Amino acid sequence: MNPDQAYAELVRLSRDETVLASCLDVLDWDEEVCMPRGGVEHRAQQMALLAGLVHDRQTDPRYDDLLSTVEASSLVSDPESPQAVNVRELRRGFDRERRMPRKLVEESARVTALASQKWAEARKRDDVKIFVPWLDRIFALAREEADAVGYAETRYDALLDDYEPGMTTDRLSALFAHLQAQLLPLVDSLRGEPTPAPGHVLAREFPIDRQRLFAEGVAAALGFDLECGRFDIGQHPFCTSIGPGDVRVALRYYPRNFTRGFFALMHEVGHALYDQGLDPAHYGTPIGEAASLGLHESQSRLWENLVGRSHGFWRHFFPQLRSVFHEALHDVSLETFRGVINHVGPSILRVQADEVTYDVHIMIRFELERALLAGDLRGAELPGAWAELYQRYLGITPDNDRNGCLQDGHWSEGLIGYFPTYTLGNVYAAQLFDAAERAVGPLDESFAAGDFRPLRAWLGEHVYRHGQRYRVDAIIKRATGSAPDPSALIASLSRRYGSAR
Amino acid sequence: MNPDQAYAELVRLSRDETVLASCLDVLDWDEEVCMPRGGVEHRAQQMALLAGLVHDRQTDPRYDDLLSTVEASSLVSDPESPQAVNVRELRRGFDRERRMPRKLVEESARVTALASQKWAEARKRDDVKIFVPWLDRIFALAREEADAVGYAETRYDALLDDYEPGMTTDRLSALFAHLQAQLLPLVDSLRGEPTPAPGHVLAREFPIDRQRLFAEGVAAALGFDLECGRFDIGQHPFCTSIGPGDVRVALRYYPRNFTRGFFALMHEVGHALYDQGLDPAHYGTPIGEAASLGLHESQSRLWENLVGRSHGFWRHFFPQLRSVFHEALHDVSLETFRGVINHVGPSILRVQADEVTYDVHIMIRFELERALLAGDLRGAELPGAWAELYQRYLGITPDNDRNGCLQDGHWSEGLIGYFPTYTLGNVYAAQLFDAAERAVGPLDESFAAGDFRPLRAWLGEHVYRHGQRYRVDAIIKRATGSAPDPSALIASLSRRYGSAR
Repeated sequence: MNPDQAYAELVRLSRDETVLASCLDVLDWDEEVCMPRGGVEHRAQQMALLAGLVHDRQTDPRYDDLLSTVEASSLVSDPESPQAVNVRELRRGFDRERRMPRKLVEESARVTALASQKWAEARKRDDVKIFVPWLDRIFALAREEADAVGYAETRYDALLDDYEPGMTTDRLSALFAHLQAQLLPLVDSLRGEPTPAPGHVLAREFPIDRQRLFAEGVAAALGFDLECGRFDIGQHPFCTSIGPGDVRVALRYYPRNFTRGFFALMHEVGHALYDQGLDPAHYGTPIGEAASLGLHESQSRLWENLVGRSHGFWRHFFPQLRSVFHEALHDVSLETFRGVINHVGPSILRVQADEVTYDVHIMIRFELERALLAGDLRGAELPGAWAELYQRYLGITPDNDRNGCLQDGHWSEGLIGYFPTYTLGNVYAAQLFDAAERAVGPLDESFAAGDFRPLRAWLGEHVYRHGQRYRVDAIIKRATGSAPDPSALIASLSRRYGSAR
Repeated sequence: MNPDQAYAELVRLSRDETVLASCLDVLDWDEEVCMPRGGVEHRAQQMALLAGLVHDRQTDPRYDDLLSTVEASSLVSDPESPQAVNVRELRRGFDRERRMPRKLVEESARVTALASQKWAEARKRDDVKIFVPWLDRIFALAREEADAVGYAETRYDALLDDYEPGMTTDRLSALFAHLQAQLLPLVDSLRGEPTPAPGHVLAREFPIDRQRLFAEGVAAALGFDLECGRFDIGQHPFCTSIGPGDVRVALRYYPRNFTRGFFALMHEVGHALYDQGLDPAHYGTPIGEAASLGLHESQSRLWENLVGRSHGFWRHFFPQLRSVFHEALHDVSLETFRGVINHVGPSILRVQADEVTYDVHIMIRFELERALLAGDLRGAELPGAWAELYQRYLGITPDNDRNGCLQDGHWSEGLIGYFPTYTLGNVYAAQLFDAAERAVGPLDESFAAGDFRPLRAWLGEHVYRHGQRYRVDAIIKRATGSAPDPSALIASLSRRYGSAR
């Protein structure tokens, strides 16, 4: 087989594998959004079977020969060409996957499908004991996974590398240390200051059906393509990309907590815009796929915070908001409203955290999941350890486990090493937003005019369309002029929250 | 491998195959109910890929050896044992599937996924030309399929046998001839009689959201298990069984056509009760699966007509109906209402046909699809042929193709040889209902008391729980004392519609 044929065959294998994996995405979405409870056992069997088949494809021994043939040819001489990028990333994925035993892949799919249900049940009943054995099981499987795929320094490296290629526990610890040094004093200074009691406005009633109407209208205005996607109600907000032309966002609204539902929408729409902006011609190959979870989170955090909390955004949307929620907002000014939604203070729930304390929630999870993975902490000890860290860093303690260690579903889905990508996302987002503004002029002005195209176009040009053409560090460097660095985030937070309050 | 091991391996293969096929059912349901339009191309790729994988399993060469090993053993000596039944039916399925070329299976999946969309589009725009090339393509694929699997007399036999094992075109033609001889005079006699103009009550407004509420309440009262199923809105009513604990019904309601939506619900719930009544312990093997499409349709038609149009049923539900739709029904009596919903007269749409003329709609389709399959009729000639037969048998002509040859989606999904199973369903349903009544006493009385358990329990005992333990003819014979025979249907229709009008 000549290199051209080998490359064509590689693309075919990669596309088939992606299409098959996308069937799992449909099952997963359906389980979260539609499936009746009685279907849970059967769904676990479906997922385990498909996950095994996907794994078979990922470890198809033909990859090795085909990759070797193309790697040795001139097809990969330009490292930015689709051929070179796809071969580089397919090699990386193949080398990882073939180290994963098929049984482990199937078992993980089976256990996480059931564990997600147990987590939901534990949360509903506020009974952590229902979930603890499943949590231990999931971390045991994660250890098996790390040992199977291998790592340089610590098992956590192996898991992290799956979400953020090239990132290590050491680099991440340094980044968190830098952030912590500057963030905790900022958090403390804000804790000391008298701030208006939050929530008095937001605890008013915002009828759910109207929240949904308003939020989906905003999403369409931001550029979410409803011909190629949909919105639903789920247990937990998430975005899933089934394939080109089918990107779905699930949300949850709360009648007396407008911000929780709304900023989750902004977050998930940020993810969706990235997915909808990938090049469909390259679907199913790395150059048509998102570069990393951290970069994906940068898009969600950027739209959630740097757009959704901005003055311009609300100059445009507040009049509409006030007319939709006349009873709740008729006596509230734009400035009061912005003050309330941007109020900073320690909170129990990550998804309700303000921008400043958000990364503290992540630090806590980063610390806990490393301990759980290392076996230094057992599932049964998690509630205590959780409470202790929240007390130490934020000065508060959750009333119950439902709002404590059961608040996030990530671990139940087997996502370990995922949380830090939220903070990486915040770091990248601040850098990207600054760079976009340098390039296209004051974004706040365009937001105030209801025009989100300049920002979206810049992100499309510098982030979306590249897929995995470059590694994340290089994408950030090329787009912003600097390597990933928390300084822009600190500066942005200090500028907006540190003074004049 | 000894026979016990071989049988265990057979069960494992069969279960895996069924679980994989059930993933296709999720994709199919999602396409009908949820998928955004932009996802259609990708969905076709997903379906084609999975259909190919299912076919690979169905034709796994290991089946042949394993089946031979068990067939030669004492495990199958009791023909009613799960072992004997599963081996008999797996052999039948295997011998059919291995004759189907993989390319044909994939191509059919791909074409029908796209054709369904084209059909919906053609229907929406009332432009049959959009669909004609796809119809021809589908019948060409059906000819290829018939030639691949083989047949005794005519290609149509090969397709029919897939839905109704053991049925032949000859037997079916004889059955239709018998029915036609007795039914057409009945239709004509009713056509001649002055009947109250229908629709004046039913053309009043029945708000859709309340129709949905009422209908789903009725479904729950009949015994549909909402922990193990769900209701949705779709383009076309259908029931799909994803697996044990997950049976879904999609419906469509019309603000000025209460009966259309409501009797579709009764129909689909009849299907769902059968699926929910199968033995979950045997899921994934023939003895845990429905015996035939005709028997499945007997359940839908039984609940739709013999329950849903009965006096007792409405004695129980009419007061509730009238309170839900007070404006439309405040001046309508139970007797008037029943007269209107049971009005007989020729209609353009099959799904709106009364019980008496319904089978005439099927005869027309039976005639047309045999001609299309034989190549005696081309897609472009279908609208004319359709109009001609409706004029000949029912004395009416559709105004447009949307309500003519585009009214049903079956052909677009590749379901050829499927329509006759509706009439078989009517034939079986009349026999089963009579037998149930002989066994448990006057059903109308229990319906009037809102108690549907006696009927459901009898059906569970004599139909649901058997799965494929017996062939359809034997199930009917054992349950009713007679072989399949249209006399009970004719008698039931004559008794209820032929006199005193």
